[in-house]
Amino acid sequence: MSQKQQLINQVIEAWRALQQQAPLVQCMTNSVANNYVANILLAAGASPAMIDNPFEAEDFTKISAALSLNIGTPTTEQTQAMLISAKTAQQHQVPWVLDPVGYGAVLKWRSETVDQLLQFHPSIIRGNASEISTLAGNNIQSKGVDSTLNSQDVYAQAKSLLQYTECVAISGESDFIISKPLNAVIQVNGGCYLQPKITATGCALGALTAAYHAVAPATIAALAAHIHFAIAGKLAFEHAQTVGSFNIAFLDYVHMLDDNLIQQYVDIEVVDMES
Amino acid sequence: MSQKQQLINQVIEAWRALQQQAPLVQCMTNSVANNYVANILLAAGASPAMIDNPFEAEDFTKISAALSLNIGTPTTEQTQAMLISAKTAQQHQVPWVLDPVGYGAVLKWRSETVDQLLQFHPSIIRGNASEISTLAGNNIQSKGVDSTLNSQDVYAQAKSLLQYTECVAISGESDFIISKPLNAVIQVNGGCYLQPKITATGCALGALTAAYHAVAPATIAALAAHIHFAIAGKLAFEHAQTVGSFNIAFLDYVHMLDDNLIQQYVDIEVVDMES
Amino acid sequence: MSQKQQLINQVIEAWRALQQQAPLVQCMTNSVANNYVANILLAAGASPAMIDNPFEAEDFTKISAALSLNIGTPTTEQTQAMLISAKTAQQHQVPWVLDPVGYGAVLKWRSETVDQLLQFHPSIIRGNASEISTLAGNNIQSKGVDSTLNSQDVYAQAKSLLQYTECVAISGESDFIISKPLNAVIQVNGGCYLQPKITATGCALGALTAAYHAVAPATIAALAAHIHFAIAGKLAFEHAQTVGSFNIAFLDYVHMLDDNLIQQYVDIEVVDMES
Repeated sequence: MSQKQQLINQVIEAWRALQQQAPLVQCMTNSVANNYVANILLAAGASPAMIDNPFEAEDFTKISAALSLNIGTPTTEQTQAMLISAKTAQQHQVPWVLDPVGYGAVLKWRSETVDQLLQFHPSIIRGNASEISTLAGNNIQSKGVDSTLNSQDVYAQAKSLLQYTECVAISGESDFIISKPLNAVIQVNGGCYLQPKITATGCALGALTAAYHAVAPATIAALAAHIHFAIAGKLAFEHAQTVGSFNIAFLDYVHMLDDNLIQQYVDIEVVDMES
Repeated sequence: MSQKQQLINQVIEAWRALQQQAPLVQCMTNSVANNYVANILLAAGASPAMIDNPFEAEDFTKISAALSLNIGTPTTEQTQAMLISAKTAQQHQVPWVLDPVGYGAVLKWRSETVDQLLQFHPSIIRGNASEISTLAGNNIQSKGVDSTLNSQDVYAQAKSLLQYTECVAISGESDFIISKPLNAVIQVNGGCYLQPKITATGCALGALTAAYHAVAPATIAALAAHIHFAIAGKLAFEHAQTVGSFNIAFLDYVHMLDDNLIQQYVDIEVVDMES
Repeated sequence: MSQKQQLINQVIEAWRALQQQAPLVQCMTNSVANNYVANILLAAGASPAMIDNPFEAEDFTKISAALSLNIGTPTTEQTQAMLISAKTAQQHQVPWVLDPVGYGAVLKWRSETVDQLLQFHPSIIRGNASEISTLAGNNIQSKGVDSTLNSQDVYAQAKSLLQYTECVAISGESDFIISKPLNAVIQVNGGCYLQPKITATGCALGALTAAYHAVAPATIAALAAHIHFAIAGKLAFEHAQTVGSFNIAFLDYVHMLDDNLIQQYVDIEVVDMES
């Protein structure tokens, strides 16, 4: 069996495990995304809980199967809660995903918080090309990482982040999953150009990555979440071509995805990074 | 006329009063639910206002027709506001509903706040089985109150809460309304298995209960809100069987419900608890 | 060419500029509205960013093309951020829109904040009739500004606000745009009676006004946003007549609006206020 088919089989196993276990996923996300994130996770099979205050963060992270931190609209209390939960997750081996929304020179406060959060070693870091590139210390933000870059360029840009994490996931027209254990970049094709026209789809993808990480290793979790969204986006677009209707169809397909649809529609490429 | 038909008639009267009066309902709810709660209340005929800061809480509660407190994602300021508004509601006879989301041993901060809020005697307490059971002091959370329990068991589990409130409403596959004035448990059947797959439906049910309580006594208010959701859920499922589409249809039927639909689809059972 | 057709042409130019430039719009809005506001702005062609903390407010306002402040559910931190961003916007000539949700005698804290915000001279003030009337110092709230008032009455009620701003926009069954530079009131007809049954439509209209103000002068921006919503509402209602489905269709038409639809469906009247 090819490495590619092995990965697909593991993704299907992860999807089945998500349905069977319905893992409790603690989500601290932004005020724009929280309703959407909760609905996406419920539709996908997980049990989200949006516990984001510093007084309950530690106790709740201890009982959670995974943790998702998204720093889109931080408050002082939520920032405190994130630092507590990240530390708790590291100490108690709770897998956790960091989504550094808006990381960069303009938004200094959150960027400093993200720098602190990195010290607690997120299992997966997820973001768009400009966030990941800036987080990795590249100054040329405007070049970014987009689908016209080849996988070697992606790997080069994000490689320095692998000192903190097992896996880096970059969303865009195609998504790129950079795996430390596999020493490979996996490209995920699919989705729809309307997805960036709907707020919080990236935030929901980060939280879904955390949900899969409750039942699968980092690389498979990131891969499964991105494939889940890529297929749901592709199928939704066949039914609805404007943002409002598309978003409802997308939620429907996030819910209806199953092992057959994954096998039928998955579109990935694996690139070995050894050189 | 049977007690059951008398209750149904009172529910229909409550629905009509809601349409005619469009009562102002102050809602303090969680960050996941606030948009959905506002839309459900507007669709059902009420006028929601999400005033949840401690600096305006007292003045606004005084002019509100009802108050709904839901402690899903508390902040320090919102918690202060809840305590102020609950106290104000008690002093000024504003009917109010408490939804103790997440009450239990893990989430201590909110649970302590809920314990304080109970001292201001909510007119109605609404929650799922495990929240209500834990709030009532039962240690065996896992047994909970579900639809396989009979009404006597439900009554036994939640009875101790009637020292604080007129009515306890427990949502599940079937809902149970425990009425102190009637000394009865009313079982509400209907709804759809998809409702728990949509976030904040329980929160919206609590707020709708408060809206009905602005125009009807506690037991009738709780009953009317739960019947409203049970019928809308049942009819929505006839039109859409996946979460995204179902949720839109559900909102449509929350809006389209009327006295004829209530009379046609209501499915309740009354159990006398005298013994 | 008539003044009316000149205005319509400028609105069409503004819509084209919005599509081409996709301006960055900083939105501080309430917790009920933020997801909806972001989706409406994305659908309309803008790039919203919900940066609402006091630690990043100044830096972000400096790089934003426009700023939208909506005080629906203020917190202490968000209020601080609003004051910082309003001051920054004034200093750096960033156009900004103020939406004084709930202004009046009952909600004193926000009303005092709004009074402070006025000192930084919003380019446009947007609200419903009772908010605008109270903000303009009228005591007779209940008379308000509704569609039965003629334009002279509207002008008389809101005129005092023109000491702070270029333009006042009042939403209702018909909308009224009061322009200082034109010394005129423009009435915008259209929309649908269901829009007030959906929460945050007014908040989204304020944010869309800010988005248009990034690419057009105040009067044209307010006019374009209100025409955008009036046409989308009218067309959506032809496809769906209940709140849930209507709201999805509305989002679709906000996205599908183009210059042809504007020219075909626009319904405005200009009244000269010289006397």
